[in-house]
Amino acid sequence: MTDQTLVSLEPVRSVLESLTQNQVQFTVYDRVRVEPTDASFKEAISFAKAGLFDAFVAVGGGSVIDTCKAANLYASHPDNDFLDFVNAPIGKGLPVTGKVRPLIAVPTTAGTGSETTGVAIFDYEPLKAKTGIASREIRPLLGIVDPLHTLSMPSRVAANSGFDVLCHALESYTALPYHQRSPCPPHPQLRPAYQGSNPISDVWAVHALRVVAKYFKRAVRDPEDLEARSAMHLASVFAGIGFGNAGVHLCHGMSYPITGNVKTYRAQGYNVEHPLVPHGLSVVLTSPAVFNFTSSMCPERHLEAAEILGADVSGVRRSDAGRVLSDTLRTLLWELQVEDGLQALGYSSEDVPALVQGTLPQERVTKLSPRSHTQDDLEELFHQSLKLY
Amino acid sequence: MTDQTLVSLEPVRSVLESLTQNQVQFTVYDRVRVEPTDASFKEAISFAKAGLFDAFVAVGGGSVIDTCKAANLYASHPDNDFLDFVNAPIGKGLPVTGKVRPLIAVPTTAGTGSETTGVAIFDYEPLKAKTGIASREIRPLLGIVDPLHTLSMPSRVAANSGFDVLCHALESYTALPYHQRSPCPPHPQLRPAYQGSNPISDVWAVHALRVVAKYFKRAVRDPEDLEARSAMHLASVFAGIGFGNAGVHLCHGMSYPITGNVKTYRAQGYNVEHPLVPHGLSVVLTSPAVFNFTSSMCPERHLEAAEILGADVSGVRRSDAGRVLSDTLRTLLWELQVEDGLQALGYSSEDVPALVQGTLPQERVTKLSPRSHTQDDLEELFHQSLKLY
Repeated sequence: MTDQTLVSLEPVRSVLESLTQNQVQFTVYDRVRVEPTDASFKEAISFAKAGLFDAFVAVGGGSVIDTCKAANLYASHPDNDFLDFVNAPIGKGLPVTGKVRPLIAVPTTAGTGSETTGVAIFDYEPLKAKTGIASREIRPLLGIVDPLHTLSMPSRVAANSGFDVLCHALESYTALPYHQRSPCPPHPQLRPAYQGSNPISDVWAVHALRVVAKYFKRAVRDPEDLEARSAMHLASVFAGIGFGNAGVHLCHGMSYPITGNVKTYRAQGYNVEHPLVPHGLSVVLTSPAVFNFTSSMCPERHLEAAEILGADVSGVRRSDAGRVLSDTLRTLLWELQVEDGLQALGYSSEDVPALVQGTLPQERVTKLSPRSHTQDDLEELFHQSLKLY
Repeated sequence: MTDQTLVSLEPVRSVLESLTQNQVQFTVYDRVRVEPTDASFKEAISFAKAGLFDAFVAVGGGSVIDTCKAANLYASHPDNDFLDFVNAPIGKGLPVTGKVRPLIAVPTTAGTGSETTGVAIFDYEPLKAKTGIASREIRPLLGIVDPLHTLSMPSRVAANSGFDVLCHALESYTALPYHQRSPCPPHPQLRPAYQGSNPISDVWAVHALRVVAKYFKRAVRDPEDLEARSAMHLASVFAGIGFGNAGVHLCHGMSYPITGNVKTYRAQGYNVEHPLVPHGLSVVLTSPAVFNFTSSMCPERHLEAAEILGADVSGVRRSDAGRVLSDTLRTLLWELQVEDGLQALGYSSEDVPALVQGTLPQERVTKLSPRSHTQDDLEELFHQSLKLY
């Protein structure tokens, strides 16, 4: 399973060669939609059901891997309705109890971490909001993380993918601690995939952040910088392992309506026929506002993150932690030539109510924010994110 | 499964209460030997075979958890001879292909990391050498890491357990890199449990080392310091995840004859009837000599370790990395009132040939040393470890 750009590139070619050499029969599905929708998921599911496959190989970014997870899940559960496993409140959020087929994920972008997680995200077009399926059961059996594959990423794709890594790390490190999450599920099998920050996810988040601080700019600047691109590819895995059990919160929750409501904006470096806000970009644009907002709940972690990203935090008061991390992020975005806020994507103040409405169904992630928030708070965060510099 | 000290203490009591409350039938086996032998393993195996148990719970330190792994393995493989799964060259080192029963490990010391690994170590008395069984298949299904359990550890047990964590972290971080290990196994199933240092194990090793640097002394000094003992308990898990796939090398390889050849030394704080060199002590006493010896192969990692442990490495030359880490370790041992080298355990120069002979069968781990070594090198390392201060 792959997309129409990748199908003629080296990563897919080498997988097909390997399958052929090892006498594995296969069929290629290359109609994955970049930033998938319920319709594109369903098309892949129909393909998977019809093919009666023993196993799946996904070669691509998060869109491909997520689509393949969904195709695998529903092909193995042919009697279930599409909304059965989709997160509540949009879907029924039923736990997956059956077995899926083996899925091997070969990521070609360095951002999603999807090869490490049990999450598949898509745009639910009837509500113009992103939602997803979250279950440990759909996690790939194996990830093959080959840094040579990321050399095919254009510079802007490397930047946007890296922002996803950055936000995975920052959000999972600052997520509501696991012991403050409530209510407790009545049975361990009903535990959510996202459990809040914990001592294991913290290790991965901080480590990923250190790698980002050291290698991100180099990986964007020079696509041939194999050391930097290798490091970012691994950072994507590391952050994935972290957020895959801790969860993400406001940047991700607010990003879904930002991509879902896109009007005409079409990102550079993506070979697609439709308006597109890349996931990493939609996530990072609210990050200066979000971490300024959340810092009061765990200022030490916000300061530590700012320091890892290069800020001088000596003598900074805890009450200034949010401002310092926010400024550090804004500087990083400026240096990486990121669009100047949601305005540059075609949004204005008038769109904020719709963006807030699109965030409300994302409770699965937004409830992991360390600081509780009202609709007014979300409105304010979107307003602050319209212009960054 | 537990030992005779723990059987009357809180950690075992709370497990038995939970089993009773949940109407799980059980039989207690409390005859685990601290620093187990082939004979004590076999006794536990007979018990497990006779009981036809559905599952196992191990409550204790590495000795208990390792014994339980072996009991579980052979009870599930009743037709295999004891030496079948024991590491070559002492045993046949056959790969485990069958399934074992679920094993829940509840560690009560903060050192072994055994709850995270697929390794079970014992003294093979016919050769007076430690060896073990290593297979991912025998890894516990679940570890329950409750820091309250470590409050029952006497101060010396906390110190010796912590040395095991320290050496797990240092050895796995400096182990031969995975891509330099040769020959490649002909099939992934024949991959050794210990694969050499790699980007994943490095994350755990460095993180564990940071925790040790911050909390180890406090955890030894005050058994009631819950924060420090909690941190060390987690560090033990972290280092276990790291060395469980990277491996350890010379400190561990050389430690096995140190415990196996013990004459009369009986460590403080251990309630046993036989001479005993605790595992962590036997491991750490050679560490100043070992890391001075290995540093030339990866001086940056040795310097980084020294810095994490508190050394000022500014301006230190790479060629001095071994000396600096060695001095740092000696200072730490002195501060923690550790015996002054192998002499204090009853060994003299005359014992060195026997210690070297006992190290040779440990090739499974010693071959992971980043620097290759001769018998003369081993002899020199033991001589240097006779006296530390």
